[in-house]
Amino acid sequence: MAGTSKKKSGVRRRGVGRPRGGDADVRAKLVDAAILEFTRVGIQAASLRAIAAAAGVTPAMLHYYFGDKRQLTLAVIEERLLPALAPVRALVERAGSGPADLAAAFVNGMGDVVAAHPWLPSLWVREVLCEGGALRDALFEHAIPRVPQMLAQGFAAAQAHGRLGPGLDPRLMVVSLVGLTLFPAAGAPIWRRMFAAKDLDAAALRKHTLALLDHGMGAHRPGPRKGRRKSP
Amino acid sequence: MAGTSKKKSGVRRRGVGRPRGGDADVRAKLVDAAILEFTRVGIQAASLRAIAAAAGVTPAMLHYYFGDKRQLTLAVIEERLLPALAPVRALVERAGSGPADLAAAFVNGMGDVVAAHPWLPSLWVREVLCEGGALRDALFEHAIPRVPQMLAQGFAAAQAHGRLGPGLDPRLMVVSLVGLTLFPAAGAPIWRRMFAAKDLDAAALRKHTLALLDHGMGAHRPGPRKGRRKSP
Repeated sequence: MAGTSKKKSGVRRRGVGRPRGGDADVRAKLVDAAILEFTRVGIQAASLRAIAAAAGVTPAMLHYYFGDKRQLTLAVIEERLLPALAPVRALVERAGSGPADLAAAFVNGMGDVVAAHPWLPSLWVREVLCEGGALRDALFEHAIPRVPQMLAQGFAAAQAHGRLGPGLDPRLMVVSLVGLTLFPAAGAPIWRRMFAAKDLDAAALRKHTLALLDHGMGAHRPGPRKGRRKSP
Repeated sequence: MAGTSKKKSGVRRRGVGRPRGGDADVRAKLVDAAILEFTRVGIQAASLRAIAAAAGVTPAMLHYYFGDKRQLTLAVIEERLLPALAPVRALVERAGSGPADLAAAFVNGMGDVVAAHPWLPSLWVREVLCEGGALRDALFEHAIPRVPQMLAQGFAAAQAHGRLGPGLDPRLMVVSLVGLTLFPAAGAPIWRRMFAAKDLDAAALRKHTLALLDHGMGAHRPGPRKGRRKSP
């Protein structure tokens, strides 16, 4: 609507290719439309024409802002994907040194990210986890790897101090954390349908995941059987 | 080579379209080639011409056996995917009623499946987990769903008897099990590269996963700190 009013008011300086509406506004709309199309059909199959149409602009205007799909993909990475994941890193950096603190920081951080950016798990599955995914290399080139390394080092230190189970591998702990957060988020349409589980929301998933990480399946410690004696 | 010798010996009854080599042999080669191509580029993008070439036959011969891609996909499901997963179901059916028994049956069963059929995790990611995946409906229509239901019911029964942690959800236990087995298998190229973890093989992953499921991250019970008193 802002675009329409500006067009009517005659703010046009570069002829036909000139974006209606604020530059930043149109640009943001294009990046958001790209994310949805990338998530829906994959980056390789995504049509620039469809992305432009979804953003309400012409293909020429998309070209004016981004040139080609590679530039548009870079914008998605730098302006959406990395900022979306930044809070996880901040939480992990501030977490205590115990394994439960580290795991909770990641689980809660990733839970918040998924809630705020529902497109992220699907995009991750299609473009990172899938063989040949277009964002797999970006994962390694950008800041994201620091979080897995930070976590693995934290778990290794905890294990050296006898605070992480000796049967666990500190690096595989990171793999387990991703498998218990991003994977369930991406697979939610499947398991909700499979178990008719509309009652299981993000909070239920977070509670389950933290309980599993803290105690495993055992009902021993907090449960009624084989528990430690109650303190007086 | 069998095909070449038969061709040379003049065993041709239906002219150009007649398969060289045994029918079952050519058919199996085509299904195997389809799996590799489906896994590599996805079912939608897979080229029947490329699959035929990979199997060493003409596109006409692929058409002779399967008609179209839909029939070829059905053959992949019925002749490869379902038989590959059948042992998991058998193990879960025979498992004891304790949560550790159920989880171990699934983790060990899935570990064996992945070892025997290395294409399975990638195909699952691309065609089940990805939005719009061509095998997602097949997952619901065929026998596979019985395993998740069986597991969820087993975990619910265990929880009712105080044998599964009260903070866990029996249905989400199934989601966790998949996230701790199929997901790490599919993501192995990523985390092996990320952690330079060539030393972590399938056996290491299985040991880690069972330890996490049994006890969580805690070093309490088997570990040196806060443990129960040593028996004399």
